[in-house]
Amino acid sequence: MKYKNPFFKKRDSIYLNDLFKILNIKKKKYKNVEINDIKNLDQSTKKDVSFFHTSKYANMLKVSKSNVIITSTKLSELVPNTKIKLIVENVLLGVAKVTDYFYPNSIKDEFENLSVEKDYKDIFKKVKFGSNVLIGDNVKIGKNSKIGHNTIIESNVRIGKNCNIGSNVIIKKTLVGDNVTILDGAIIGKKGFGFFPNKNKNIKYPHIGMVIIGNYVEIGCNNTIDRGSLSNTIIGDNSFLDNQVHVAHNVQIGKNCIITGQVGFAGSSTIGNNVMIGGQAGVSGHLKIGNNVKIGGGSGVIKNIPDNTKVMGYPAKDIKKFIMENK
Amino acid sequence: MKYKNPFFKKRDSIYLNDLFKILNIKKKKYKNVEINDIKNLDQSTKKDVSFFHTSKYANMLKVSKSNVIITSTKLSELVPNTKIKLIVENVLLGVAKVTDYFYPNSIKDEFENLSVEKDYKDIFKKVKFGSNVLIGDNVKIGKNSKIGHNTIIESNVRIGKNCNIGSNVIIKKTLVGDNVTILDGAIIGKKGFGFFPNKNKNIKYPHIGMVIIGNYVEIGCNNTIDRGSLSNTIIGDNSFLDNQVHVAHNVQIGKNCIITGQVGFAGSSTIGNNVMIGGQAGVSGHLKIGNNVKIGGGSGVIKNIPDNTKVMGYPAKDIKKFIMENK
Amino acid sequence: MKYKNPFFKKRDSIYLNDLFKILNIKKKKYKNVEINDIKNLDQSTKKDVSFFHTSKYANMLKVSKSNVIITSTKLSELVPNTKIKLIVENVLLGVAKVTDYFYPNSIKDEFENLSVEKDYKDIFKKVKFGSNVLIGDNVKIGKNSKIGHNTIIESNVRIGKNCNIGSNVIIKKTLVGDNVTILDGAIIGKKGFGFFPNKNKNIKYPHIGMVIIGNYVEIGCNNTIDRGSLSNTIIGDNSFLDNQVHVAHNVQIGKNCIITGQVGFAGSSTIGNNVMIGGQAGVSGHLKIGNNVKIGGGSGVIKNIPDNTKVMGYPAKDIKKFIMENK
Repeated sequence: MKYKNPFFKKRDSIYLNDLFKILNIKKKKYKNVEINDIKNLDQSTKKDVSFFHTSKYANMLKVSKSNVIITSTKLSELVPNTKIKLIVENVLLGVAKVTDYFYPNSIKDEFENLSVEKDYKDIFKKVKFGSNVLIGDNVKIGKNSKIGHNTIIESNVRIGKNCNIGSNVIIKKTLVGDNVTILDGAIIGKKGFGFFPNKNKNIKYPHIGMVIIGNYVEIGCNNTIDRGSLSNTIIGDNSFLDNQVHVAHNVQIGKNCIITGQVGFAGSSTIGNNVMIGGQAGVSGHLKIGNNVKIGGGSGVIKNIPDNTKVMGYPAKDIKKFIMENK
Repeated sequence: MKYKNPFFKKRDSIYLNDLFKILNIKKKKYKNVEINDIKNLDQSTKKDVSFFHTSKYANMLKVSKSNVIITSTKLSELVPNTKIKLIVENVLLGVAKVTDYFYPNSIKDEFENLSVEKDYKDIFKKVKFGSNVLIGDNVKIGKNSKIGHNTIIESNVRIGKNCNIGSNVIIKKTLVGDNVTILDGAIIGKKGFGFFPNKNKNIKYPHIGMVIIGNYVEIGCNNTIDRGSLSNTIIGDNSFLDNQVHVAHNVQIGKNCIITGQVGFAGSSTIGNNVMIGGQAGVSGHLKIGNNVKIGGGSGVIKNIPDNTKVMGYPAKDIKKFIMENK
Repeated sequence: MKYKNPFFKKRDSIYLNDLFKILNIKKKKYKNVEINDIKNLDQSTKKDVSFFHTSKYANMLKVSKSNVIITSTKLSELVPNTKIKLIVENVLLGVAKVTDYFYPNSIKDEFENLSVEKDYKDIFKKVKFGSNVLIGDNVKIGKNSKIGHNTIIESNVRIGKNCNIGSNVIIKKTLVGDNVTILDGAIIGKKGFGFFPNKNKNIKYPHIGMVIIGNYVEIGCNNTIDRGSLSNTIIGDNSFLDNQVHVAHNVQIGKNCIITGQVGFAGSSTIGNNVMIGGQAGVSGHLKIGNNVKIGGGSGVIKNIPDNTKVMGYPAKDIKKFIMENK
């Protein structure tokens, strides 16, 4: 699936020379190529700058079309000499600076200036609105959808048909499919908890990803689902999230998953299809949980879990082993 | 205690023949008896259909007054031949279908169509209202109670006297006693997280239970307390819940309990009186926690706990054993 | 740092005789000295009554300037005979009664009577307001700050400059520094979960502390941060809290801390500077976590942690040991 991101207005392309300035790199003798955008290794075209910050992505680097790579002294050896290497001390900080340049409104999450309009019913045919609803510009809402009281839907958000959005809900930078239920108090699409620790004043990371919610999804009360940094946070079709679930930035949850109350996902983990997770379990960041996995309530998952596995415990292990050890 | 449920309008009684149709059972030669409602085994009269989905309830089956039982082929042997057996593949799915028929508004949790009325003060004498409060039809609020800003109280909810309801609170399908405090952001009475997993489109379970909150209870900020499916979710007199507690459907908490921050209860567990639960502890579903039990913070309770016991750990065990093992 | 608490109006000073009445102590033959306030041992002047409820504070007792000490029969031996001893059965209950007397509005957390004013822009120059914002009396908001939709800021709250307050936020009894971000749905400054368990009707503890939030802090969505009882709840400069974090009363978090999603702090713990805490970890009450400590996700910390330590597990232990044991 490929979705166009309508939320962040990109600046025009710049030149390699400008990149040197943004990154505070002493100018070198390169042909002054045009740079259109900043993207992940696997998504970049030859007009985009990309970045290489961990040897884990060495294979991706090999196939990346980007010709300009932000990297560190140490990792630069792995970057082919056919590419232009922009060597910085902190790669991700460099990425943040360039992203912030291209997408100037991606770092702060200020409230959008909205006021209650009287004519929602004229703009959105066959949509039912509660009291004190705030809707931004260019919002699309499908027919037979319902938007509860005090709910805020910021500009460019798209909501499909037959959706049931509760009260006191906040939705920004999000595409919602059809037949989706979002229960009261859920907050969807705020920037992730990403920043560079820095004494006295942390440096916040720009978040230009969005949240994509599939069809027939249910999002529980008081859930918090953060948008992605460069990639998107995704909740797959027909996945159900119970109350007080926290989904951090870049997490991708597959289809038909069942996520019980108070479960938490740290950033950038990928969850397969048909995964069941018991209450209060936590999944650490950057993990891959396979298809048809069952994770027992209260578990703490700190490593990848292969397909068709049942795990439980902290740290989570094979459930039979957990039960044996705890008889 | 016996409370009448004012929230779900039941349809008129139907005939056994109609049940066959709803359950998609080939019609058999039974006398066409009238069916008034669907109820649990122990609560049904001879005019109600009931259901038998696990042998755990065999004793209840013996004393049930219901003459018409939804069950499976396997379990049907345990059902006396004096009763009419409605044999289906998935018993609870059959129950859901029949419940949905009798109570047509019990599956979805759409916002109620309300607008701010100017004359609350005339209707509710001696009640203090904040700004932008929404109140449904037939709501009862006792004297000296206070309802904070932006709070939504849906139709037929009853709130006792001297209650202190905070701001941004949502209350539906709930009976609240006297002298109760409900703090800001709590969401009470939404349907539970119950459904039949089904590829592409889960089948949601109807929830016709309510939430019953006793006297002198305190419910913390951002709590989520779901209503029951067939039975009720109950918070007993003088029990105090801290912030961010999650209480799933059908949970029954006794009197004088102390439930600390971020504790979670999975569905259908019963908690005794004078129970103390430390922060972030979790109680699995369908458990029985006795009276005077103390559960240490962070514990994961996965089995029944007898009266007067102190437990801690994940899985929770006798606290002395836990401390010994973790010296 | 010393901040004046503008939130609780203290009654005028009383006489020792009045204290006897409040505490239900049979009057003794003491000179009828004037009592100005109730304070902790280390903060009291010779005009304040103080209290001694645990031998842990014996050293503090020695240097306390207070001449009137509420204590128990058992502990009274440790109190110098130069001081007047007010002996009660339950010391903290006595403290609660006296505090409640001096600060009559400190026990309940009723919503404040506010309505939307049209002229916020005239009162607060260079502040941007969302829709349906409620602001109490004597609130101060610095220039270039933003206050999101439906947000409630109660009387006497102070917010610095360049702050970004989200929507559906509730702030009371709180001082907020400059350049602070408070994200949607956070609830800050309600009274802590402190009370004396008492059959049928618990006795609530007065909370006359406030919440103090330093500069450059970020508070996540749906956080709950309770104010202190006698002392304050503090979030130090440049500390960042992710979504769904719970901070109980009297907790003091240092500078430059990183607190990830769904972490919970029980009451009265002190967290040093530069502390990193992974998702869903919990810190028990009355602990001291040193500087530069790292606590792994899902950990349950139940004892003090020295400076420069990495811990993980439940109960939390040295991280190397945890990893070894769980290979």
